[in-house]
Amino acid sequence: MRMSKRFGRTLRETPADAEMISHQLLLRAGMIRPLGAGIYTYMPLGWRVVRKIEQILREEMDAIGGQELLMPVVHPAEVWQASGRWNLVDDTLLRFQDRTGHDMVLAMTHEEVVADLLRREVDSYRQLPLMVYHIQTKFRDERRPRGGLIRVREFMMKDAYSVHADSDDIDAYYPHMIQAYQDVFARCGVSPIAVEADSGAMGGTGSHEFILLNEGGEDTVVLCDACDYAANTERATFVKPGQEKTPLRPVGEVATPGCETIEEVARFVGVPTSQTLKAVFFATEEENPQLIFAVIRGDLEVNEVKLSNALGGLVLRAAEEEEIRAVGAVPGYASPMGVHGARVIADDSVHLGSNFVAGANREGYHLTGVNYGRDFTAEIVVDIALAGDGDRCPRCQGTLRVKRGIELGHCFKLGTRYTERTHITYQDANGQEKPMVMGSYGIGVGRLMSAIVEEHHDEYGILWPASVAPYTVHLVSLASEGIVAERAEMLYQRLTEAGVGVLYDDRPDLSAGVKFNDADLIGCPLRLTMSRRSLKKGGVEVKPRNSGEREVIPLDGVEAYVSQVAQA
Amino acid sequence: MRMSKRFGRTLRETPADAEMISHQLLLRAGMIRPLGAGIYTYMPLGWRVVRKIEQILREEMDAIGGQELLMPVVHPAEVWQASGRWNLVDDTLLRFQDRTGHDMVLAMTHEEVVADLLRREVDSYRQLPLMVYHIQTKFRDERRPRGGLIRVREFMMKDAYSVHADSDDIDAYYPHMIQAYQDVFARCGVSPIAVEADSGAMGGTGSHEFILLNEGGEDTVVLCDACDYAANTERATFVKPGQEKTPLRPVGEVATPGCETIEEVARFVGVPTSQTLKAVFFATEEENPQLIFAVIRGDLEVNEVKLSNALGGLVLRAAEEEEIRAVGAVPGYASPMGVHGARVIADDSVHLGSNFVAGANREGYHLTGVNYGRDFTAEIVVDIALAGDGDRCPRCQGTLRVKRGIELGHCFKLGTRYTERTHITYQDANGQEKPMVMGSYGIGVGRLMSAIVEEHHDEYGILWPASVAPYTVHLVSLASEGIVAERAEMLYQRLTEAGVGVLYDDRPDLSAGVKFNDADLIGCPLRLTMSRRSLKKGGVEVKPRNSGEREVIPLDGVEAYVSQVAQA
Repeated sequence: MRMSKRFGRTLRETPADAEMISHQLLLRAGMIRPLGAGIYTYMPLGWRVVRKIEQILREEMDAIGGQELLMPVVHPAEVWQASGRWNLVDDTLLRFQDRTGHDMVLAMTHEEVVADLLRREVDSYRQLPLMVYHIQTKFRDERRPRGGLIRVREFMMKDAYSVHADSDDIDAYYPHMIQAYQDVFARCGVSPIAVEADSGAMGGTGSHEFILLNEGGEDTVVLCDACDYAANTERATFVKPGQEKTPLRPVGEVATPGCETIEEVARFVGVPTSQTLKAVFFATEEENPQLIFAVIRGDLEVNEVKLSNALGGLVLRAAEEEEIRAVGAVPGYASPMGVHGARVIADDSVHLGSNFVAGANREGYHLTGVNYGRDFTAEIVVDIALAGDGDRCPRCQGTLRVKRGIELGHCFKLGTRYTERTHITYQDANGQEKPMVMGSYGIGVGRLMSAIVEEHHDEYGILWPASVAPYTVHLVSLASEGIVAERAEMLYQRLTEAGVGVLYDDRPDLSAGVKFNDADLIGCPLRLTMSRRSLKKGGVEVKPRNSGEREVIPLDGVEAYVSQVAQA
Repeated sequence: MRMSKRFGRTLRETPADAEMISHQLLLRAGMIRPLGAGIYTYMPLGWRVVRKIEQILREEMDAIGGQELLMPVVHPAEVWQASGRWNLVDDTLLRFQDRTGHDMVLAMTHEEVVADLLRREVDSYRQLPLMVYHIQTKFRDERRPRGGLIRVREFMMKDAYSVHADSDDIDAYYPHMIQAYQDVFARCGVSPIAVEADSGAMGGTGSHEFILLNEGGEDTVVLCDACDYAANTERATFVKPGQEKTPLRPVGEVATPGCETIEEVARFVGVPTSQTLKAVFFATEEENPQLIFAVIRGDLEVNEVKLSNALGGLVLRAAEEEEIRAVGAVPGYASPMGVHGARVIADDSVHLGSNFVAGANREGYHLTGVNYGRDFTAEIVVDIALAGDGDRCPRCQGTLRVKRGIELGHCFKLGTRYTERTHITYQDANGQEKPMVMGSYGIGVGRLMSAIVEEHHDEYGILWPASVAPYTVHLVSLASEGIVAERAEMLYQRLTEAGVGVLYDDRPDLSAGVKFNDADLIGCPLRLTMSRRSLKKGGVEVKPRNSGEREVIPLDGVEAYVSQVAQA
């Protein structure tokens, strides 16, 4: 490719609204261009990187028996209504009507379509297990697109779906997928950590996310500093500090004037926050909202995702003050005692301690000596606490650290949630009808491209790993005519014919500095510079992008040198 | 790929609503599946065909300097408003709003986005010419999707766009694109004819369509039976029969009671229809519609596309009776004489003859002796006539035939229509700002796949050309255990490792007949059958899909045999 004809110019200035380094560099190198908020064109150089990533994805998916297919981007609403997600998903699912007034959606994911296909195409245990995948454009109407390709609205995903006869079979298959994902990432030059993940609205029985630690990422993960425990924040567990149990005392009431936070109450009453209970109110996103009364020890925070999961996946929002008062609770002084019409869910920390201080449901008063079982009960008692920095590791008691990262991929065991609901069944060897067990696995292609740049750049530009570089060689000619230009042209032709990807800077009237800056910005692994000086020294100057070392090698040794770099 | 695990079953029955043979066979072979009206999933086998077509497209586009990129499917309305097509295109352009109420469209084509990119990325004559292309999903909200992949709503296009400094440059480039298209079609085993085409709403200064003659097609083309003249119906010209000119007579009025058609009028008055003028009324699709009064000789028909082009691309509809009366015309007896407030456009046939019979703008009466120039004039006099079967060829006077066909591709010279309107300019060598000259070129990938099936099938199924076959070899094992199964398995492994695409029918409990039927239906170029009988004869039976001849060849000769077929 000749730089003189390349579609997509390099930019000297860093675009003002680009915060993440990958966003800046992909724009500046002319690899992507925005068309609208969260909607990008992949320019020719960027698209070459995507195609190389796609190829790696195809090879790894094919290696574990994947069958590639292509599903539609526009879906009739019916398939989303059948799965229940038409109502469950918020406005990120873009709904519209076609010319006949028929409800449609822009696909943000394809479980529904896969399910629809499975119902028609698979009926026997002999056809299982089965894995299909696709690499295609999807759309999420994100409220706040950001970070270039990190969180977009129109995006490209490699999504895979597997179906199995039973959970033993998916358990046996799942590690192969995890390994394939790790191989994909390794080949692309990134090393995300596989963390236990919450599968959230996806349902399911186990899942992992691949998180690349990065300060600019929007996911948070919890990591142990002593063992390899890693989980996303929604899912992370921790050892809740015990609280000495004392003989049960009767319930008393104390005035707590002006105490607005749990810390103030604890200080006023003279107990640690771990000897208090706090109430947090949520309401369900339903036509007739239910009030959810979450009770947790005062030193802990409620993890809304765990709470939602405890309730079978209900979508929650913070409750309004009048909703809270309607069940007999007093905001700021709420107690699970004497509340009617709310669903009470307690964190299991209510068992760790005794004689808690809790609200009195009376403005300005709290109760002392409150004990679970004797004074109040909950519909569900389960872990609904949020892990925080400094908490104890559930595996080794080491210290947990909360870090930010970019989610590059996920693997979800979905169990039979979709398949039961939408009657995706097969006949087993005995002729019995059973729901298939399903798995769903995704990698964001554009996000992966950004992540590679996050990991491989310096102050001058990108350093593409050879596996995904748009071109292996960036050939700079320092003259536009005469022997130097002739030799450069000849080398360009020769390497191109040998199948080497060459970006050839044949532009006239530009200084060496400008050309070298562009080469550094674009980031091909190997720069070759043809100049009067290099020819005098007997050849062409080579400089790997990832080192400052330059040497002149003879022209007939270039192919061998390049093939070394390409394989590295 | 093992048939036992293949996702996508074969169907015995022809689906009831599939009329075209390609639709029937692609469904029956499990290559495509409908999700909604005009919305299809490409199943793994069908997707392999698409990927091979894509590869051919890439190679041919790259060979003429194309730079591949990927543009968004969802566009903000602004780019379509800037080009004017937001208002110009009907409901086939799917418009919707995002979560913030912003107007968006699903892209049906990408001239607008390319224009937007060109404006930002190209400013110098040094960067021209330039050709970019993309292969991606687009959406047209067709009123009546039909024919499987022939007319869909969601479709995949290879679209290319070129820009040039001037029309000489695009004239020099254009034949390369035409040749590349012919090469693509030849490699895919289809031979559409290149016809002169009208570029319609695309604007432009010249264009071709590639039409595969086919009774089930929805395009009509006009072909000369003597020379190679070929044009689509909208564009076709023909030699209009002359009409003897007689000395001008004064205008007279005759009663023509009960004459409702031009034929009845001509018979009643005693002249051939070629000595009458007829009026056809249209209205523009605008808020304040203009009335268009088209005048044409009575033996000819108005070509609405030519008429629209004569009016600079106005979108037209048939006029309502009250709109016609409002300008002083009387439906059925309308005359261009005495009409006010309508734009009168005349076909140039008004010059071919004299003393015409025309309406009198009075119920039940016609005028005689009507002559253009003396008695009426038109704002524009130009060819707006529709060519029909039996008309004379404009090149050689041969007989024109009207045929149906499938449009597989198009090449449009757009001129500077878009680029002027949207200020896509460059600086020439003298620093002068000039609009770029643009071309647009498309091939429908799914439609091409269907067309291949239309051309390559027999009563039993598809006969894929080797270049696009999902697999080269369909290996049938007639036993599921013992030596036959072992040898089949071994051959499958061996060929797969050698890089040969093999669809391996390893299904137990199925008869040879069922397996052979599936092989014929799916249509891989070469069937290999492993059986006790073939092994006794020293190897495996080979049968090319396109011949009835079977022979047994030794197992160690299979690779050589297969590579012959793959190259054929």
